[in-house]
Amino acid sequence: MTSLTLFTPAGVLAKAMPLRRAAKRLAAHGFDIHVDEAALAKDQRFAGDDDTRLAALHRVADQAPDIALATRGGYGLTRLLDRIDWTRIARSVERGTRWVGHSDMTTLQLGLLAHAKGITWAGPLACGDFGGDEVDDITEACFLEAMSGELEAVGFRTEPGFDGLQLRGTLWGGNLCIVSSLLGTPHWPGAKAIKGGVLFLEDVNEHPYRIERALLQLHQAGVLDAQKAIVLGAFSHFRPSPLDRGYSLKTAIAHLRGVTKTPILTGLPFGHVPTKVTMPVGARVDLVVQGRDVLIGWQHDH
Amino acid sequence: MTSLTLFTPAGVLAKAMPLRRAAKRLAAHGFDIHVDEAALAKDQRFAGDDDTRLAALHRVADQAPDIALATRGGYGLTRLLDRIDWTRIARSVERGTRWVGHSDMTTLQLGLLAHAKGITWAGPLACGDFGGDEVDDITEACFLEAMSGELEAVGFRTEPGFDGLQLRGTLWGGNLCIVSSLLGTPHWPGAKAIKGGVLFLEDVNEHPYRIERALLQLHQAGVLDAQKAIVLGAFSHFRPSPLDRGYSLKTAIAHLRGVTKTPILTGLPFGHVPTKVTMPVGARVDLVVQGRDVLIGWQHDH
Repeated sequence: MTSLTLFTPAGVLAKAMPLRRAAKRLAAHGFDIHVDEAALAKDQRFAGDDDTRLAALHRVADQAPDIALATRGGYGLTRLLDRIDWTRIARSVERGTRWVGHSDMTTLQLGLLAHAKGITWAGPLACGDFGGDEVDDITEACFLEAMSGELEAVGFRTEPGFDGLQLRGTLWGGNLCIVSSLLGTPHWPGAKAIKGGVLFLEDVNEHPYRIERALLQLHQAGVLDAQKAIVLGAFSHFRPSPLDRGYSLKTAIAHLRGVTKTPILTGLPFGHVPTKVTMPVGARVDLVVQGRDVLIGWQHDH
Repeated sequence: MTSLTLFTPAGVLAKAMPLRRAAKRLAAHGFDIHVDEAALAKDQRFAGDDDTRLAALHRVADQAPDIALATRGGYGLTRLLDRIDWTRIARSVERGTRWVGHSDMTTLQLGLLAHAKGITWAGPLACGDFGGDEVDDITEACFLEAMSGELEAVGFRTEPGFDGLQLRGTLWGGNLCIVSSLLGTPHWPGAKAIKGGVLFLEDVNEHPYRIERALLQLHQAGVLDAQKAIVLGAFSHFRPSPLDRGYSLKTAIAHLRGVTKTPILTGLPFGHVPTKVTMPVGARVDLVVQGRDVLIGWQHDH
């Protein structure tokens, strides 16, 4: 039986119900569910104070379940970056733990690439994706297959213009705000992942000009040009402004395509949206485009 | 007669009225007002396309008026960073031009420190501060005196606990989002300003957890510890969340004081608020605290 631990590394769970519902749903899929003892801890907007959340991370790492699925994101892992014992996290990955999540979990995923090595999984969060009234079929199937090792590729439709693109590189990225917030710090995955990578990005509640500014920062820092491809997921829930006057996410992306030669593909089903794929962060992937169909594939052994 | 040019380096001016009003008000103070030919240009959310705004910046630099006051901030200078001729901007400063503004203008001010040298002025923006129905007396007096060279210090009240603090360093900073967005790029003022500086920061519409995250990034990048003082202005207009549960700007600052030994002073009248001081960015300043009164002073020759 596959063991799955639910833990809360960042923002507080205001209610227990979504966690219970997620645990029940995942148990019905045959997982042996363990809820970390601090999963419902509360300290201001955090799931327990910094010591509590740090201890939870290390405890989960030491227990090394098959799957360590974060219950939610929020804000909190940034506070722990200077204190996380990365070799402990890396050892759990070696022992077979698949750490899964997105949003604030990007902090852990990229920090691990910066300090040690180890593949983690960009994918659902327990409460948001499995704790509500409905579960997205694709999100669920993709997660289950990625965890069992059956899934070896994700596919999606992109804009015209990339037919025939074929490349290989390290898949890395996640939440754009978090990616930016690591730049210039020792927690930036830098040289290890940065060269010839496939950088995927998503964000929520960010106006396109802020997305553009964050991507221009990555460009000015030499990051975009050093990638083989940039793959954009969902940039959701922002509020347009009357001052936009035709400026949009589309025009922002057009501007970015003018400053970097690296192909920028859109359409990845990933981010703060119901339908999201599960993918290995830090793994070598092959990206192939046929017509408008993109396939990102990896080796089964991850 | 002191010449003053109004120019729009970033966001579009939706209406001409605030600009006209600001021009009239400033003229009444005896300035010889020139409105740059592209000040009302429009291209999507920008005051003209990138070429237009870049040309405006260089034109103003070549004309070298006594004062170059931005009409508003918004977003736009980030796009120009890789293309600005910094020696041209620096030459205008040598010829006596005082570039004034805040918000997006932080981009120009810190970029200049990164690429060349030259003191610019953190202060009002023409439309927001002089183009409305009312003008803040302190903002206006401070701006006028800073421009005439009379002003050699700004004072404000801070929290208890800093009595007797006395230090000297380069004053730098501005909008926190912009400061963060330069990290890791060639436009980061880095070694030139970073060591032993007095870093002042403000922001608008940012929840305290985002302010904390941005400041933690600066900390993790070694920036906070390298400063003699951090001086916080206004962090205004954010929306608290029901998930905060007692977390606030105050608790965020308390957390930051726990991670860096550099004193973090609050209370600077600066930011996206009506009352703001005008101060020289890039100048050596003396910061002195007596009781709860802070004085930031500089040499007249700036």
